[in-house]
Amino acid sequence: MKIWFIGDIVGQPGREYAGEIIRKYAPLYQPDLIVANGENASHGRGITSKSAEELYDAGVELITLGNHTWDQKDLLNFIDHDQRIVRPANYPLGTPGRGYTICKVGQISVLLINAMGRAFISELDSPFRAIDEILLEHPSIHHVLVDFHAEATSEKLAMGWYLDGRVSAVVGTHTHVPTNDARILPQGTAYITDLGMTGPRDGILGMDRTGVLERMLTHRPARFEVAAGRRQFCSVFIELDDHSGKACSIEPFLQYEE
Amino acid sequence: MKIWFIGDIVGQPGREYAGEIIRKYAPLYQPDLIVANGENASHGRGITSKSAEELYDAGVELITLGNHTWDQKDLLNFIDHDQRIVRPANYPLGTPGRGYTICKVGQISVLLINAMGRAFISELDSPFRAIDEILLEHPSIHHVLVDFHAEATSEKLAMGWYLDGRVSAVVGTHTHVPTNDARILPQGTAYITDLGMTGPRDGILGMDRTGVLERMLTHRPARFEVAAGRRQFCSVFIELDDHSGKACSIEPFLQYEE
Amino acid sequence: MKIWFIGDIVGQPGREYAGEIIRKYAPLYQPDLIVANGENASHGRGITSKSAEELYDAGVELITLGNHTWDQKDLLNFIDHDQRIVRPANYPLGTPGRGYTICKVGQISVLLINAMGRAFISELDSPFRAIDEILLEHPSIHHVLVDFHAEATSEKLAMGWYLDGRVSAVVGTHTHVPTNDARILPQGTAYITDLGMTGPRDGILGMDRTGVLERMLTHRPARFEVAAGRRQFCSVFIELDDHSGKACSIEPFLQYEE
Amino acid sequence: MKIWFIGDIVGQPGREYAGEIIRKYAPLYQPDLIVANGENASHGRGITSKSAEELYDAGVELITLGNHTWDQKDLLNFIDHDQRIVRPANYPLGTPGRGYTICKVGQISVLLINAMGRAFISELDSPFRAIDEILLEHPSIHHVLVDFHAEATSEKLAMGWYLDGRVSAVVGTHTHVPTNDARILPQGTAYITDLGMTGPRDGILGMDRTGVLERMLTHRPARFEVAAGRRQFCSVFIELDDHSGKACSIEPFLQYEE
Ligand SMILES: [Fe+2]
Ligand SMILES: [Fe+2]
Ligand SMILES: [Fe+2]
Ligand SMILES: [Fe+2]
Ligand SMILES: [Fe+2]
Ligand SMILES: [Fe+2]
Ligand SMILES: [Fe+2]
Ligand SMILES: [Fe+2]
Repeated sequence: MKIWFIGDIVGQPGREYAGEIIRKYAPLYQPDLIVANGENASHGRGITSKSAEELYDAGVELITLGNHTWDQKDLLNFIDHDQRIVRPANYPLGTPGRGYTICKVGQISVLLINAMGRAFISELDSPFRAIDEILLEHPSIHHVLVDFHAEATSEKLAMGWYLDGRVSAVVGTHTHVPTNDARILPQGTAYITDLGMTGPRDGILGMDRTGVLERMLTHRPARFEVAAGRRQFCSVFIELDDHSGKACSIEPFLQYEE
Repeated sequence: MKIWFIGDIVGQPGREYAGEIIRKYAPLYQPDLIVANGENASHGRGITSKSAEELYDAGVELITLGNHTWDQKDLLNFIDHDQRIVRPANYPLGTPGRGYTICKVGQISVLLINAMGRAFISELDSPFRAIDEILLEHPSIHHVLVDFHAEATSEKLAMGWYLDGRVSAVVGTHTHVPTNDARILPQGTAYITDLGMTGPRDGILGMDRTGVLERMLTHRPARFEVAAGRRQFCSVFIELDDHSGKACSIEPFLQYEE
Repeated sequence: MKIWFIGDIVGQPGREYAGEIIRKYAPLYQPDLIVANGENASHGRGITSKSAEELYDAGVELITLGNHTWDQKDLLNFIDHDQRIVRPANYPLGTPGRGYTICKVGQISVLLINAMGRAFISELDSPFRAIDEILLEHPSIHHVLVDFHAEATSEKLAMGWYLDGRVSAVVGTHTHVPTNDARILPQGTAYITDLGMTGPRDGILGMDRTGVLERMLTHRPARFEVAAGRRQFCSVFIELDDHSGKACSIEPFLQYEE
Repeated sequence: MKIWFIGDIVGQPGREYAGEIIRKYAPLYQPDLIVANGENASHGRGITSKSAEELYDAGVELITLGNHTWDQKDLLNFIDHDQRIVRPANYPLGTPGRGYTICKVGQISVLLINAMGRAFISELDSPFRAIDEILLEHPSIHHVLVDFHAEATSEKLAMGWYLDGRVSAVVGTHTHVPTNDARILPQGTAYITDLGMTGPRDGILGMDRTGVLERMLTHRPARFEVAAGRRQFCSVFIELDDHSGKACSIEPFLQYEE
C-alpha cells in the first residue's frame, strides 16, 4: 500500500499548488491513500468547509490538523460529521470532532491518528498516552499512520522511537520546514521529523516576510498574510506491507516552482 | 572558496566520526575551510580544551557554539585566547570569548559569526541587531558565515531573509535534525534551517533514548547520556564566489553508518 | 514627596473605579504625584486616547504600559507627543513613544521609567541594561520611579535588588494580583513585587471568568471580555525624602467594593 | 476547624524558622492541622527524609510538594509509605507517592490535594481534571484542601473559581511571594494566589542574590545557594465550618525577622 502524506497546506497558494501537483503526479505514482495536514489551509489559519472541499476535490482523502485547528469557526459546522478530518487526539474528552479515523484501502483498514506535542506548543494531556489508548482500542488494525504535530525535535523523535514497531508511520508536522531524516526505524516504523509546508516558497513559513520580520525586529504587532509568488510542495511517499503494516520505504517528494 | 560546515558534534562518538569522515573526504572534496558547531562535543554538553583540540586535529579550523556554551567550565580556560572558537555574539558585553572571528583563506578574509535565537531558547538581546553591528564594523569583508543557533524555524528563516545579500551564508544549528531546505536566497545568501547533528544515529538528538523517553513519559528526572552505536555525520558544502562572497551553491553532505 | 502608584487599570470598570477612588481619597491623602499602569485601560487591552484622557481627568498624571502597549492602534496617534505616557524602555531604538519621562513635582525632577521583563513575557533586550543607561544619562535626578512589568517573581525581585539604592522605588505590575511584600530595601529603595489590578473584582485578572475557564478547560478559543460586577482598586503610597530621593515608606492601599 | 497552611519552606533557614514560629504560636492559635509546602526544604531543592522528619518534629503534620518534588533522590525511599506527604496529583499513573491524602482531625476526615499548573511550569496533564477525579472518588468528604503549585496568576485564579463551593480552600504556592488577595469566594472556598516563602528574607526567592543576579545579567551559569541572614515565615490561617467544610475565614500570617 502506498501512502502519500502531504505537509501543512498554507492558504490559497498551498491549496492550488497541492491540487496541481496531485493531479499531475497521482496518475504516475498511483498512491492508495492521500493524506494532508490542513491546519493552515484557509488564509494560513485553520480550515473552512470550502477549503476542505477544495482539498477533497483535488484528491486528498483524509485531513489532519494541529494548533490552528480552531482558527476558523466554520470548522465547527462540519468537523463532527465529516469522518475524513481529524484533530489532535489529546484534546480533552468532549472536544468536537475526532482524534483518529479509520478508512478502508481496498480490504485493508487504515487507522489515521493526529496528536499534538506539548513542548513550546500546547498544554494538552500526554500525546504518548493518548496514542497508546487508541492503539489499545484497535488491536487488529496493522496499518496505522500518525501525524504528530509538534515543535521540538526531541519530542518528535521520542514519539517516533516510542511507537517504533507499533505503528506503520510517524510523520511530524508544524515547523513548515521539511527535514532530511526520513528513515525506517529498526522495528519497521517509517519516520520523518517534519514533512514541511505546501504553499508560498519565498515567505516565512508561508506567510509574507514583511510582517514576520517587522514583528521580530520591532516586537510590535504586524499584519500576517499568506505570501504571494512561487510555491513549494512538501510530502513523503510511504510504502507499507499490505499484510504486516510495516513500512517498506519512505521517500520525500518535494516540488519547487521556479 | 569551498566551505564545509558541520552540524552540532555530540560527544565522543560525534568527535570520532567527524574525524573519520573529514579524513576520508577532505582529500576528495578539498574544502578551503572547515567549520563545526561544537556546543555538544564533550559528553553532549559544552566543550573542553581536550575536545576542541581533538576537533582541530581532525581538521576542523573554526568552532561555533550555542546554548550549551558554558556547560564545561574548562572552556573558560581557553575561550579568551583561542581565536578559532566563537560563542553567540548576542551575549552581553563583557562575556568571555568572542561572538565572531576573522580568518584568512588564502588572501581572502572570512568573517564567522555565531548568534543565538530567542524563541524558546534564550533571553539574550536581539541576534538581528548583534549581527548588524558586526557587519557594520567590517564593511570590507565580503565572505561572511553565520551560524544561527535557534529553535524556531520562523526565527531561523527570518534571519536568513534578513541577511540575504549581506552575508555569504546563514546555517542554522541546534535542533540536531538536518533540514531539507538548503537553497540560495535571491540576493545570493546560502541558507539552510538546520545542519543536523553529528554523533549517535539511534539516540534522540544524540542522547540515549532510554533517559529521554523516561523523562518525557514520567516527567521525573532521568539520566541523559550520549548514546552508543552507529553514527551519523551532518554537514553542508557551500561554494562562495572568491570575489563577491556570494554563494554559488549549498549542498547537504550527510553520512550514515549502517 | 508622596507618590500614589496604581496597578493595571482594566477596562471601563477599572477606569471608573479608579476615578471614584482618586476623587474620594486624593483630598484626604494629598499625593504629590499619581501614576497608573494603563496597559489594560481600554477593553482590557491597550489604551486609546479617550481612555488616557479619562484617566488624566480623574487625576492620574503619568501612565505606564506593558505587554499590551500596542493592542489599541489609537495609541500611535498620541504616544509620540504625549509626555505623560511611557512604554517599556527596552523596546528597540526607533520604537514610538518613550521609555521614560521626567516631570516636575514642585521644584523636584522626578524620573519615571517603564521596563518589561523577559521571563515568560517578552523577547526584548535586557531591562537591567536599559535602566542602567537611562540612569547614567540622568545622574542628577534622585527621585526615580520604576514600573517593572514582568511575570516571574524571580526577575522582579532581582530588579528590586539590582536597583536598590539607585532608584527611589521599583513597583512590579502585570500579574494583576497584589503582593504582600511591600518593603524598603536596605539601601533605600521602596519595592513591591506587584501592585495588583484595578478593575472587576470577581473576574480572572479582570476578565470575565466564563471565557478564561472555557479556554483553560477546552484549549479552544473563547471570548475574553472585561468582567462586570463589583470592583477593586490596587495601589501603593510611597513616601520619598525630598532631598535624597530615598524611600521613607511604602504602603499598599487596596479598596474592594462589597 | 482551624488549618495553618505554610508556604514553600526553603532550606535549613526555612526549616529552622518554621520550627521556631510554630513552637511559638501554635500554643497561642491552637490550629487543628498544620500543612506546609516542602518542595524546597532541602538545600532549596526537594526534600530528604531528614528534612521531612525535621518538619514533622516541628509540628507540621502534612507536606505538599511541587516542581522540585524529585530533586532529592532520597524522597524515593519514603514517599511511597509516608502517608503524610503528597506530590502533584496530575503526574501520570504509576508515579511514586500519592497526589492526595486523607487524615482525621478529631472525627472529621480532611482530604489534602496537591496539583501542579501547566502555564510556564510543567507539561503535565490537566490539574483541573485530576482534581475533579479525586473529588468524585470522595463525595462524602467535605473538608478539602488544595495546594495548587503554579506560576501564572491566571491559572491559579481560574482554579480557585473552578473549585469554588466544591472544596474548602485553594492555596497557591511556587512564586515564593505572598499575595495580598486572601478571600472567601462566593460559594465558600477560601482562596489565596500564593502563600509566599518561608526562609531567607533577603535573598531572591530564598536563594542567595549574587548567583541569581549573576545569571540574570550574564546568562551564564552561576551557583545557586540558599541565602543566609534574617528570615521570613509566610502562611495563612483558614477556619472551616466543622459541619459543612465551608471556609469561614482566611487570614495571612506573616512573620519577618528584623
Ligand atoms: Fe502548527
Ligand atoms: Fe502549520
Ligand atoms: Fe543547542
Ligand atoms: Fe546542539
Ligand atoms: Fe501585562
Ligand atoms: Fe496588565
Ligand atoms: Fe515550585
Ligand atoms: Fe517553591
